[in-house]
Amino acid sequence: MKEINMDYGAAGPVDPRVFEAMQPFFINYFGNPSSGHDLGDKPREALAEAREKVAVLLGALPEEIIFTSSASESNNAALKGIAAAGKNKGNHIISSSIEHFSVLNPLKTLQKNGYEITLLPVDKFGLVDPHQLREAITPETILISIMTANPEIGTIQPIRDLALIAKEKEIPFHTDATAAIGFVPFNVDDNGVDLLTMSGDQFYGPKGSAVLYVRRRTRILPFVEGGIQEKGRRAGTENVPAIVGLGEASRLAAEEMEVRSKKLSQIRDKLRTSLFESIPHIYLNGHPTHRLPQNLHIAVEFIEGEAMLMRLAMAGIFVSSGSTCTSQALKSSHVLAATGLSTELAQGSLLFSFGKDNTEDDVPYVTEQLSEITTLLRQMSPLYQKYLKEGNM
Amino acid sequence: MKEINMDYGAAGPVDPRVFEAMQPFFINYFGNPSSGHDLGDKPREALAEAREKVAVLLGALPEEIIFTSSASESNNAALKGIAAAGKNKGNHIISSSIEHFSVLNPLKTLQKNGYEITLLPVDKFGLVDPHQLREAITPETILISIMTANPEIGTIQPIRDLALIAKEKEIPFHTDATAAIGFVPFNVDDNGVDLLTMSGDQFYGPKGSAVLYVRRRTRILPFVEGGIQEKGRRAGTENVPAIVGLGEASRLAAEEMEVRSKKLSQIRDKLRTSLFESIPHIYLNGHPTHRLPQNLHIAVEFIEGEAMLMRLAMAGIFVSSGSTCTSQALKSSHVLAATGLSTELAQGSLLFSFGKDNTEDDVPYVTEQLSEITTLLRQMSPLYQKYLKEGNM
Repeated sequence: MKEINMDYGAAGPVDPRVFEAMQPFFINYFGNPSSGHDLGDKPREALAEAREKVAVLLGALPEEIIFTSSASESNNAALKGIAAAGKNKGNHIISSSIEHFSVLNPLKTLQKNGYEITLLPVDKFGLVDPHQLREAITPETILISIMTANPEIGTIQPIRDLALIAKEKEIPFHTDATAAIGFVPFNVDDNGVDLLTMSGDQFYGPKGSAVLYVRRRTRILPFVEGGIQEKGRRAGTENVPAIVGLGEASRLAAEEMEVRSKKLSQIRDKLRTSLFESIPHIYLNGHPTHRLPQNLHIAVEFIEGEAMLMRLAMAGIFVSSGSTCTSQALKSSHVLAATGLSTELAQGSLLFSFGKDNTEDDVPYVTEQLSEITTLLRQMSPLYQKYLKEGNM
Repeated sequence: MKEINMDYGAAGPVDPRVFEAMQPFFINYFGNPSSGHDLGDKPREALAEAREKVAVLLGALPEEIIFTSSASESNNAALKGIAAAGKNKGNHIISSSIEHFSVLNPLKTLQKNGYEITLLPVDKFGLVDPHQLREAITPETILISIMTANPEIGTIQPIRDLALIAKEKEIPFHTDATAAIGFVPFNVDDNGVDLLTMSGDQFYGPKGSAVLYVRRRTRILPFVEGGIQEKGRRAGTENVPAIVGLGEASRLAAEEMEVRSKKLSQIRDKLRTSLFESIPHIYLNGHPTHRLPQNLHIAVEFIEGEAMLMRLAMAGIFVSSGSTCTSQALKSSHVLAATGLSTELAQGSLLFSFGKDNTEDDVPYVTEQLSEITTLLRQMSPLYQKYLKEGNM
C-alpha cells in the first residue's frame, strides 16, 4: 500500500548524510571530549565544529550555543534558569497562551513557587499583539517568552517587534523556535532575541539533539547541574554522536533551507487549494500567510479528528490531530481554544506537517482519500444530519 | 604504536551489537512513540522492550524506569524532584562528601533555597558509616542519597545497610549507581533503594542514554516538565535509538556481567600486583576489597599526576588523573581529600578504569612504561630529591 507521511512534526527520519556524519562517533571516536589524552581529541574537535555549524545557522557566536537533550529541556532550562537568576530583580514572567507544554508547565511550577505569570492571548490567527505585550510589562518583569512559530497551527509571530519591546525595557527575551528553525531563516541578532530553543529532530537531525541559545552576558543559572561541560551551563557527558548529527543537520539546513521550504510551501498550498476545492465545510486554522512552509492545519466541520486520523492511516496517510507531541493526552487543543475556535471544530481538526519525502504528487491521493472519508463520516454524523435537516442542503 | 585504553570510566565505545540494535531507528523506524498511527508502532514497541530489559537488569518493574539523557540529569531529577515533593514534610537531605558533582551541585542549590544538607564523611577507604547515617537523620529528613560505588576510587558502599536505615525511618533512599551498574549485580529490591541513577554509556550503551529508577508510590515531581512522555515524569520526545541501545546494553550486561567482571577484576588485580612489585612509593586509593572490578586507583608519591598522564599518553596508554568527568576542572579531587589523602598524594594519583578491549597482556607494557616514567619524573622531582637527601635511600 502507498504510504504518505504528513506527520513530520511528530517525528522525521534522520537525513542519511547526517547519519553518516554521526556514525564514526559511536564506536571509533567514542572518547570523552573532556579527556586530557588523545581519545578526547577527535570528539572535542567534532564538538567545536558542530557548535560552529549551529552558530552559523542562527547567526550566533559558538560560545552562545548550549547543547541539550531536547527542546523540552531547553525550554525548562531557559525559563527556570532565568527565573532563578532574576529572582532578586523581580518575579513576573510574560508568555503566551499558545506555547508548548514544556513552556506552560514550567511556568505553572514557577507560579507555585511565587512567580507571577501573564499569558498573553492571541487573535483568531494565533498572533500575539505587541501592544498587549507592552501593556503587560511591569517593573517586576524578568522574562518574556514567546514562541517563534506554533507547531500546531503554524502561525509565525512578529518576533522582531516583540523582542524589540523587551529590549527597550531591558528584559531578556526567549523564543521557542523549535518548529521554525530549519524551515524559516532566523537570525538571533536581526530578531533581537536573548534565548532561543531549537531541536535537531525537527529538521532531519537525530532525536536527543537540541540547543539552548543564550546571548552573551545573559544572566542564567544552569538547569542540569554537575560537571563543567558546556562551560558549566549544562552538566553531563556530551552526547557526541547526537551533537555531530545536529551540527550536520544545521549545516545542511543553512545550505538547503530556501529550496526545501519553497518545495514544502508549494505542497502545502497545493494541498490546501485541492482540499478546499473538494471538501465543503472546512476551514483553515492559523494565519493564512504568516505560517510555516511545512504546516497545514484545517478544521473539518461535523466530524471527529480521531475518526479521520484512523481512516487516513488505513489508507496509508499519516497525519496528526490536535497537538503533535501530546496527541495521546488531549481531546482538545489549548492552542485552538486560544484562537477562539469552537470545541467542535477543534476536535475536527487535522494537522498536516510536511517533510523531505513529500512531493506534490501526494496531493491528489490525499485529497481523494480525505474527501471520501469526510463524505462517509458525515453520513454517520448526527451533527451533519442536524445541519441538513435545518434546510442547509 | 600500541594503544591501550584504561580510561573507560571517561568514555567507552558502543558495543557493535548495541549499535546494530539502534541503527534501524534513525532512518527506518523514525516515528514518534506517542503517534496514534502506524509510524509510532515500531518505536513504541521498541521503547517497551527496552524498558523491560532495563527493568530485568535492576530487578525492577518496567513502569519504575524513567528514561533520561544522562546520569547527571537523573541525579538532578532525583534530588530536586524529591526535595520539591517533600517540601511540606521537611527540608533536610543527607548525602556523602564523595558524591559526583551532579549530586553535590544540585544539593548546593537546594541549600540556597532553604534546604539543610548534611554530607556524611567517609573513612580512609571511602566508606560511609551506617551509624553516622543513623545519627544524622532528623525528623526533617526527606531524602538520603549515597552513591553505590565511587567512579574515582572504586569503593563500593554497603548500600543494603544504608538503605535499611532509611527504610526504618520511611525516608526515600536514592543511590547514584552510575559506576556500578553493568559491573556488579544490583537488585533494587534486595538493596532496598527507592531511586537509582544509571547511565548506558558506562557499559557499552550509547551516550545520551540513562535512567532514573523510581520505586512505585514514591512521591516525586518531574524535573523536565512538559508533555506526557514517561507518564508525565520526564517530558520530551523519547530518544528512541538511544533507549533501544540502552535496552540492548542492559540485556547484554545482565547476560555477560559475571564473565566480564571476572575478567576485569583479574586485569585489575594483575596490574595492581605488577605495579606494586615494580614501583616503590605507590599506594592504593579506595577500598582494598570492596571495590569495582573495573577500577584501580593509585597514588604515586613525589610526582604530579598530569605529568604521568601526559607521558603515558605519549606511550599510547590512556588513563585519568583525578575525577574522570571533570579532569579539566580540577587540580585536586574532593573524593581523595575526603578520604584524608594528602594534597600531594592526591595530585599524584592515577585512575585506571578497564573495559572490554583490555586484556591481561596489557599489564606488562603498562607496568614497564609507568615504571620508566616514574623513575624519570622522580629524578626531576624536588620532593623526591629532598626525600633522598633526608637519608631515605
